[in-house]
Amino acid sequence: MFCNASQIYQFLIEDNITKSEGKITFDFLNISIDINQKSAIGDLFQEWFAQWLKSKDIEFRMKSNTQEFPDFLLDSESDKQNLLEIKTFNYSASPAFDIANFEAYCRSLKTNAYRLDADYLIFGYDLIDAKFYIREIWLKKIWEITGKSTRYPINCQIKQDTIYNIRPILWYSDRAKIKPFNNKKEFVNNLYETLIFYPKTKENNQDWLKIVTENYYFYTKQRL
Amino acid sequence: MFCNASQIYQFLIEDNITKSEGKITFDFLNISIDINQKSAIGDLFQEWFAQWLKSKDIEFRMKSNTQEFPDFLLDSESDKQNLLEIKTFNYSASPAFDIANFEAYCRSLKTNAYRLDADYLIFGYDLIDAKFYIREIWLKKIWEITGKSTRYPINCQIKQDTIYNIRPILWYSDRAKIKPFNNKKEFVNNLYETLIFYPKTKENNQDWLKIVTENYYFYTKQRL
Repeated sequence: MFCNASQIYQFLIEDNITKSEGKITFDFLNISIDINQKSAIGDLFQEWFAQWLKSKDIEFRMKSNTQEFPDFLLDSESDKQNLLEIKTFNYSASPAFDIANFEAYCRSLKTNAYRLDADYLIFGYDLIDAKFYIREIWLKKIWEITGKSTRYPINCQIKQDTIYNIRPILWYSDRAKIKPFNNKKEFVNNLYETLIFYPKTKENNQDWLKIVTENYYFYTKQRL
Repeated sequence: MFCNASQIYQFLIEDNITKSEGKITFDFLNISIDINQKSAIGDLFQEWFAQWLKSKDIEFRMKSNTQEFPDFLLDSESDKQNLLEIKTFNYSASPAFDIANFEAYCRSLKTNAYRLDADYLIFGYDLIDAKFYIREIWLKKIWEITGKSTRYPINCQIKQDTIYNIRPILWYSDRAKIKPFNNKKEFVNNLYETLIFYPKTKENNQDWLKIVTENYYFYTKQRL
């Protein structure tokens, strides 16, 4: 069967995903170890998740290049709707995963503005004494996990004055000072403001907002 | 007991590491999957390797920040000798692992030139139908796995004209046109030539070779 992201989210909750204890084992040369290193969790969990979908008879497609957006195509035919991205982060730290490369994402919206409506299924995990737990899951749109920063109108990973990736803000904290954007339009506007404020992109992006708005209408027949 | 890299290499050969079949299992929410994704192998194998060292009663120390160079300190006391780096790569493809960030490595040699003598234990693996194999292992010095490239005097990962990481050449192929450097000195000279040819670093590195040469002598009482 085909499901949308919201149905998948419900299945995970019904499966009591936050009550389960897991582990990752590496068995080689007569030594079996339980993995306690977090750096590999994201990739491994995504492979586990694909298998979980299969166990539920939920059909999906993937891009042949697994690095490409999105992680999962949930629609039976369309590559332009029901797009699902999977994100994992260490629940005991702050969510610092990469949502997308800033420049590549902005470029892609000019021709694939439907990406704005992709679903993000986010898993906050703990790995304690080599035991794996999912503490909380969220189903979000990109503008619900992003926000301003002090430096740019959208919070990004910045190294030596160069913008690399769009990074989430602390969307689930009541105490966080920076709140997520209120809607898609505000998110797009802040991307645009960043593009024309950031020295590397300001020259060639004056018409970016107009192009993205038109491209979004072209695909969805809706205004931003 | 304490061992040097060469003894560890021998133990691995004696353990028939290239004859063993392994697997990585992720067990969660009543689903157990055998991992078939290569992106996580490097980190997982390093954790396995640490456990293997312990099983052999081989003592080692690690930096508190596991991202830091080197992966393993094999000396009982010194942080300046018997440094071991672990590298893994997909044996069915070309070795494309990052040896070190180019600029950071060059900078570090000015004050820690003993790093030139670090050992690299390299594992060529296969992951086929979720079964893990080590096909070949090598124990190398950095100048034995690096070489020239057409663009710069040392082969690096380059994206949009920016040099990122020092990358290996195909050191184990008789048919490869580019051969490894012949010795440490040739490697250092080619680093220097790259530094003063690369626009971003040429200004401030005229004295780099002199500084590194002196620093190497300071630590080792040997000439480069």
